Amino acid sequence: MTEKTYVYAFEKGDGKNKKLLGGKGANLCEMTQIGLPVPPGFVITTEACVEYLDSGNKLPPGLMDQIVAHLTELEQRTGKGFGNPENPLLVSVRSGAALSMPGMMDTILNLGLNDKTAVGLCKLTEDERFVYDSYRRLLALFGKIALDVEGELFDQILEHEKKAKKVMFDTDLTAETWKKICDSYKALIKRETKKPFPQDPMEQLQMAVEAVFRSWMGKRAVDYRRQFNITKEMAYGTAVSIVTMVFGNMGTDSATGVGFTRDPGTGDNTLYGEYLVNAQGEDVVAGIRTPRPIKELRKDLPKPYRELAKVRQILENHYREVQDFEFTIEKNNFYMLQTRNGKMNAQALVKTSMDMVDEGLITEREAVMRIEPRALHQLLHPRLDPEKLPEALAYGIAASPGAASGQIAFTAEDAVAMEMEGKRVILVREETKPDDIHGFFASKGILTARGGKTSHAAVVARGMGKPCVSGAETIHIDYGKKKVTMKGHRFSEGDVITLDGTSGAVYPGEIPTIEPEMTDDLLSILDMADRIRTLGVWGNADTPEAAKKARELGAQGIGLCRTERMFNAQDRLPIFQQMVLADNPSDRQEAVDRLLPLQKADFTEIFRVMDGLPVIIRLLDPPLHEFLPTVDQLMTEIRRLRDFNIVAGIIQELPETLKLLDPKAREYVPFTETLLGNLAEIRRQGIDEDVLRQKEETLRKVRSLTEVNPMLGHRGVRIGISHPEIYDMQIRAILEAAAECIKDAVDVRPEIMVPQVSTVEELRWVKERVVRIHREVERRSKVKVNYQFGSMIEVVRACLRASRMAEVAEFFSFGTNDLTQATFSFSREDAENKFLPAYYEHHILQDNPFETLDEHGVGRLINITIQEARRGHPDLEIGICGEHGGNPRSIEFCHNVGMDYVSCSPLRVPVARMAAAHARLKELAGAEVKESLEKQL
Amino acid sequence: MTEKTYVYAFEKGDGKNKKLLGGKGANLCEMTQIGLPVPPGFVITTEACVEYLDSGNKLPPGLMDQIVAHLTELEQRTGKGFGNPENPLLVSVRSGAALSMPGMMDTILNLGLNDKTAVGLCKLTEDERFVYDSYRRLLALFGKIALDVEGELFDQILEHEKKAKKVMFDTDLTAETWKKICDSYKALIKRETKKPFPQDPMEQLQMAVEAVFRSWMGKRAVDYRRQFNITKEMAYGTAVSIVTMVFGNMGTDSATGVGFTRDPGTGDNTLYGEYLVNAQGEDVVAGIRTPRPIKELRKDLPKPYRELAKVRQILENHYREVQDFEFTIEKNNFYMLQTRNGKMNAQALVKTSMDMVDEGLITEREAVMRIEPRALHQLLHPRLDPEKLPEALAYGIAASPGAASGQIAFTAEDAVAMEMEGKRVILVREETKPDDIHGFFASKGILTARGGKTSHAAVVARGMGKPCVSGAETIHIDYGKKKVTMKGHRFSEGDVITLDGTSGAVYPGEIPTIEPEMTDDLLSILDMADRIRTLGVWGNADTPEAAKKARELGAQGIGLCRTERMFNAQDRLPIFQQMVLADNPSDRQEAVDRLLPLQKADFTEIFRVMDGLPVIIRLLDPPLHEFLPTVDQLMTEIRRLRDFNIVAGIIQELPETLKLLDPKAREYVPFTETLLGNLAEIRRQGIDEDVLRQKEETLRKVRSLTEVNPMLGHRGVRIGISHPEIYDMQIRAILEAAAECIKDAVDVRPEIMVPQVSTVEELRWVKERVVRIHREVERRSKVKVNYQFGSMIEVVRACLRASRMAEVAEFFSFGTNDLTQATFSFSREDAENKFLPAYYEHHILQDNPFETLDEHGVGRLINITIQEARRGHPDLEIGICGEHGGNPRSIEFCHNVGMDYVSCSPLRVPVARMAAAHARLKELAGAEVKESLEKQL
Repeated sequence: MTEKTYVYAFEKGDGKNKKLLGGKGANLCEMTQIGLPVPPGFVITTEACVEYLDSGNKLPPGLMDQIVAHLTELEQRTGKGFGNPENPLLVSVRSGAALSMPGMMDTILNLGLNDKTAVGLCKLTEDERFVYDSYRRLLALFGKIALDVEGELFDQILEHEKKAKKVMFDTDLTAETWKKICDSYKALIKRETKKPFPQDPMEQLQMAVEAVFRSWMGKRAVDYRRQFNITKEMAYGTAVSIVTMVFGNMGTDSATGVGFTRDPGTGDNTLYGEYLVNAQGEDVVAGIRTPRPIKELRKDLPKPYRELAKVRQILENHYREVQDFEFTIEKNNFYMLQTRNGKMNAQALVKTSMDMVDEGLITEREAVMRIEPRALHQLLHPRLDPEKLPEALAYGIAASPGAASGQIAFTAEDAVAMEMEGKRVILVREETKPDDIHGFFASKGILTARGGKTSHAAVVARGMGKPCVSGAETIHIDYGKKKVTMKGHRFSEGDVITLDGTSGAVYPGEIPTIEPEMTDDLLSILDMADRIRTLGVWGNADTPEAAKKARELGAQGIGLCRTERMFNAQDRLPIFQQMVLADNPSDRQEAVDRLLPLQKADFTEIFRVMDGLPVIIRLLDPPLHEFLPTVDQLMTEIRRLRDFNIVAGIIQELPETLKLLDPKAREYVPFTETLLGNLAEIRRQGIDEDVLRQKEETLRKVRSLTEVNPMLGHRGVRIGISHPEIYDMQIRAILEAAAECIKDAVDVRPEIMVPQVSTVEELRWVKERVVRIHREVERRSKVKVNYQFGSMIEVVRACLRASRMAEVAEFFSFGTNDLTQATFSFSREDAENKFLPAYYEHHILQDNPFETLDEHGVGRLINITIQEARRGHPDLEIGICGEHGGNPRSIEFCHNVGMDYVSCSPLRVPVARMAAAHARLKELAGAEVKESLEKQL
Repeated sequence: MTEKTYVYAFEKGDGKNKKLLGGKGANLCEMTQIGLPVPPGFVITTEACVEYLDSGNKLPPGLMDQIVAHLTELEQRTGKGFGNPENPLLVSVRSGAALSMPGMMDTILNLGLNDKTAVGLCKLTEDERFVYDSYRRLLALFGKIALDVEGELFDQILEHEKKAKKVMFDTDLTAETWKKICDSYKALIKRETKKPFPQDPMEQLQMAVEAVFRSWMGKRAVDYRRQFNITKEMAYGTAVSIVTMVFGNMGTDSATGVGFTRDPGTGDNTLYGEYLVNAQGEDVVAGIRTPRPIKELRKDLPKPYRELAKVRQILENHYREVQDFEFTIEKNNFYMLQTRNGKMNAQALVKTSMDMVDEGLITEREAVMRIEPRALHQLLHPRLDPEKLPEALAYGIAASPGAASGQIAFTAEDAVAMEMEGKRVILVREETKPDDIHGFFASKGILTARGGKTSHAAVVARGMGKPCVSGAETIHIDYGKKKVTMKGHRFSEGDVITLDGTSGAVYPGEIPTIEPEMTDDLLSILDMADRIRTLGVWGNADTPEAAKKARELGAQGIGLCRTERMFNAQDRLPIFQQMVLADNPSDRQEAVDRLLPLQKADFTEIFRVMDGLPVIIRLLDPPLHEFLPTVDQLMTEIRRLRDFNIVAGIIQELPETLKLLDPKAREYVPFTETLLGNLAEIRRQGIDEDVLRQKEETLRKVRSLTEVNPMLGHRGVRIGISHPEIYDMQIRAILEAAAECIKDAVDVRPEIMVPQVSTVEELRWVKERVVRIHREVERRSKVKVNYQFGSMIEVVRACLRASRMAEVAEFFSFGTNDLTQATFSFSREDAENKFLPAYYEHHILQDNPFETLDEHGVGRLINITIQEARRGHPDLEIGICGEHGGNPRSIEFCHNVGMDYVSCSPLRVPVARMAAAHARLKELAGAEVKESLEKQL
């Protein structure tokens, strides 16, 4: 058996093999090999770590020999000696697994110092303060990491000395004090470990390496890996890098700094960063002195600056991504200590990617792949100026992104009234209902105390592209007094607050926002994405405005136009209610007849906006009781009316009676005024028996419509079948609107969609009516109207009967919200507030299945549906219009199972375009390459 | 092309070929061929009918020739002539499809009569009255059926004559009148059809045959076939039988009658029936004279009686089933006109089948196959004496079979109180809740105004084997006044009513019932069923009493023991509520600790009862809010308390004040007494601020627990995970109870089942706790406790992940109630009352999927589950514990998909045993034979 290689010099290690060398180690190798000035060093492999751990914490045989050999080479190259007091070689010991992983030990600096080499180094540098400062860092880091001494104890000693010396900053301590601290640290180590601090540098090194290895199994690291599902395949064991120490604090010809190869804020192609002369890396971060912009380095240290400029070029040419790097200049010598892909805001990411395409650095596909779809959110919603944020009043769920300021309204009606007065309104509710829809239209943003990311408020707000913070449970609303209390502050109707739907925060007053814009770069990269993707992207839109927005953002059709909103409009709700409450068919038909022209006008407008593109209109879905007042509301009103009747009967005689009494006696009747006051109130309200009877009638009807489980109740096609006049009216409105548009030379492509279908017989039943009405409309209008007829697939049974459904439907559209509810038997509104938190806590679910499509369960049903439906009907148009249609991971799934399109809320359309392109690219790259791409991202 | 045979003489037709010859025709052939004295005749095939209809109502070429040939043969055999006035041959024309089908034309009698043959027949019979009575029957039947004359018009003429003659019955009319009526009928036909009644008998015959053919496509027949899903494969076209007329009214040596080969009421092996001398078939039915018991025929007409006795033997030996037959004796000659399998009550069916096995007539398997499983219901519930039924007050849904009389109680509390006084109670509610469970225990039967066959009331009542009528929507309950109004009658608390849970009827007062008993015959036939079936039959039981009942009725285990009932018991609910309402873990644990011994005692008792058999205990399933008062209840109470506070504040000064007033003034204060009365009430109630605060606190909690869709909410394993102390307690109670039983040498086989599982992680989470607690219990008790751990399969996702689930579970139990709800997205409670009726009406659904398992949707999921789970775990125990487990059709499905057992409510166990045997027999018979068996049934 030839000896295994456990150690690689930076010149030798494979820079791509992060699994073997860890991220940091591989990076140091890569930089060394592309000619960057990295201080010499070597890496101990993750394999060595794994063998150490697997053998019960024994170093693999031969490992120490290999380390010593490489150390000797280091000594030769640097001309220094490890443990040599004359010219001591100091090294840092750094951990690094394949994936960055908080909770593992980090770095021990200045290893190689001991009492003797410290003295030698003092002579060499003539800087005692520097040396003992370095020594005390080694003692503390080594003590904590390698010897398990409580870190707190080191800090206590340091704090004690600072107090004694009455200084604020570490840097204000003298060499003498540092020396004293070093002595105290050594004493502490001895006391705690019953052994002195090891003076032998090789012993230090071995102990440090073993400590790093062991930290892989430390509690925090294990928890972290479990929480983020990091499997053995992804990363196993940590590597250890041993790097020659270089010092930026060796005088005015030394410096330390951090830089970006381009500006990460704007994306501009200029060197960006800051540095400190005569300082160590930590000092830049600690903020003791104000660092200087990197351009000034040109004047301060021209030689290293020239080198830096060269390095920047090499980095970008090599990595082909913006790099975020750390450097140190020791006596005019420039050293690279680290580099990694730079984190940028979305705007900069788009700009740098587009620039790199122009510069020929990367391909269009690479540019597209680089843009995390979600990042586009930032670019499409106004955001609060981060410079001007006060302390938040409350945090809720970031339910619909974007920011909005406005005056508080507590009811939809108030919101409408305030908006009519020209005010900007924020609607604040415990929770919202379909009834409140006009309040949404009137408001700039919505804040609710209850409900999750997929609550009514959240879904509607996202659909409208309005910011929403939901489930802000710490706010307390008093509807009666029209007050809301947040963090002890009381706000009344009309007070101004600001919502950040991207972060979930609520702020007092108005916060300035930064407006979004579709930059040329963004347009270009979305164009590129469109050229790559094969999956269509449509938008969900209930109004002409939303349809317009969707089209502007690139939607290729409307995948879901909900018709219920149209009934909730203020001028229509009473008519719709009249229809629901009607006792006889003629009253009902009258109401329906009044709704027809209104619905027709809705559709006409949307068809015009979507000229040339398909529009899928869903027939009425929600249960009828959603359009009526609640039992609670009605009971309260009725009870009040009845109470007034009774009380009025008792006390209406009272004033007359009292007049008969002795005036003196009146003094003894303290309740008189109260009673008179009440009576006045009663008279003001007016007890109208008709009103009471009508309310009671409505209550009776509402009770008869009330359902135990509305989600599984009398809704969708079930209403269509029990109340055929509603669907007939909607079908007629769609087809007549289409006929009218055709006469105006608009290219209309209506698609009629039936919700909640569970049997093919339901679909057939509706289709017969569509065919009949269509024939009639064509005959009367004398134009040919083309349309498609299809089904929502949102009921489990529909999936299981897909091949039969496909015989009747010309298109399928997955409603994955409802399908997810039925597949899990989770009611979304109940789940998110009640038990899903416990499910995440116990790792029973990783994702919220209402946000990220559950591929094993719901996804399997989708797969069955598509496979079986396409078997007989390969051209069946299949899409998705549930919330998942805007979720990048779910979009990838939709692409992979062969859907034709995804449909999402308008503001999500660009995200979906990008996600669809990613899905296609991953598919092209194939399984293996796909994996490597994901890691790079 | 040789000519097709369209007509078969009774001697030639294949008596088994009902498809070709129709039921009636095949029967006549069969009887003729086994030597029974059938009047001669022939059958025209269904093929002839089909060709007639397919060719646009043209008789197939050659058909009339074949008819004439057979008619000639009839003339030769009878010595009579068709249309011959000297000795006319008369025939009846009878329709008959493969399946009996109301709405098709029935029979034309006396065909061959015309003005001339009537005269001839008068001479022959010397009975003018008989002849013109026969002629008028022909005219009316022919007019209606063959000529489409409104039947009402014939009746009007007859009624007019009866009025004119002032007679009550047809039989009181004289020959003269009949003759006159014949003339009027002929005039009517001429007026209505513009043609005279055809005097040519051949023309009559042809028209009659065509009319029968056409009736196949009549609206009522088509509707009937659609409604009952009668496909072309099952029956297509009708046959026509032509039978020589025989007359039982030709003197005292003639008679007509009906008989059963055995007593259909008791099953006794004696000839049973009745007859009339000198009468026609119709007269027996019309009840003009009282028919005489068949035994007397022996004296009246000894020769035909001897023939009848022989016929009875031949019939039973041939058909091997009890026959229900019609006969006519014409001048001492005995004729069989019809026979069919006799319809009997369940008791007689069981007895005759067992007797026939003993007699060697049929095999055990045939006997078993003969018992329709549902019929056993009749034998297991007390039933009302049908002789003593008054008019029903209301009809609801027959939700749980059996009958019960008792005094009305309107609340569970009242029911309990009344039962303690030794009363028999009927609980009458709008609907019931788990809270009402003690009311169920205290009651003999349950009546609700709302809810279907699977409402809470229905399910619980069936579980307890108590009669229940649910959804009796015409009853009006006034809880306040404790009154219920039914059909205008008002009943108060304590009034006696009777429920028939088998028919859904409600009666006033107490109706005598007939008690059920497990007869030896029933026990024997169930034994036979057990020897045949391979599917296990278990019972659902929550109490030791129910478990005992299930075991008595043959259950091989408990498939579902619900633990929630145990918490609803009166002594436990407060403790459980305390647990739910607890604000801190220690209060909660305290409550849980108090529940533990109670639960343990429950399980111990059940284990003892089920010694040697498995008991599956389901951990807590319903949402916690089901154990608390409703928001409505609490709001009402709180509002009342608050109102009292306010009113009390106003008027408590009043009496004192009034005392100060002039006594005369008091007369003018009419409201005084009312106010004083109110005050007294207020004082009685006592305004306790603590009570108010406590109610408000409970309300807050109830509100926080309230769910939008409780069916999909925080329940089952979701509670287990969020409130681990509950499941821990239950698991411990089960295992400790088992350990205790083992010490007492009871053979316990506990199986712990987790409800509402949707992910394998949930199951794993619970299993870890079970393993831990089991280890602890074994250690402390020092006995080895064997148990199984398994999962309800009632969530769609669980089906789709069955192979993973099977890695953790040792058994699966399908909860098809919930699974059906999720698959259809139908909430059972909402669906049955709201839209399912419309679905049946429009033929969108044939069956209620909550009663009969939906094989295409839910069944497919079940199939997927079993296939995938068994692939890796062939021994996985799989059963069903939903309502469908007691439905014979669904039991057949369960057998076919390979389940190990079905579990149903105890009283259904015998039904299930029988159904399981049927399923196995059908499987054995194979697909083809299976079809033929089904037809025989």
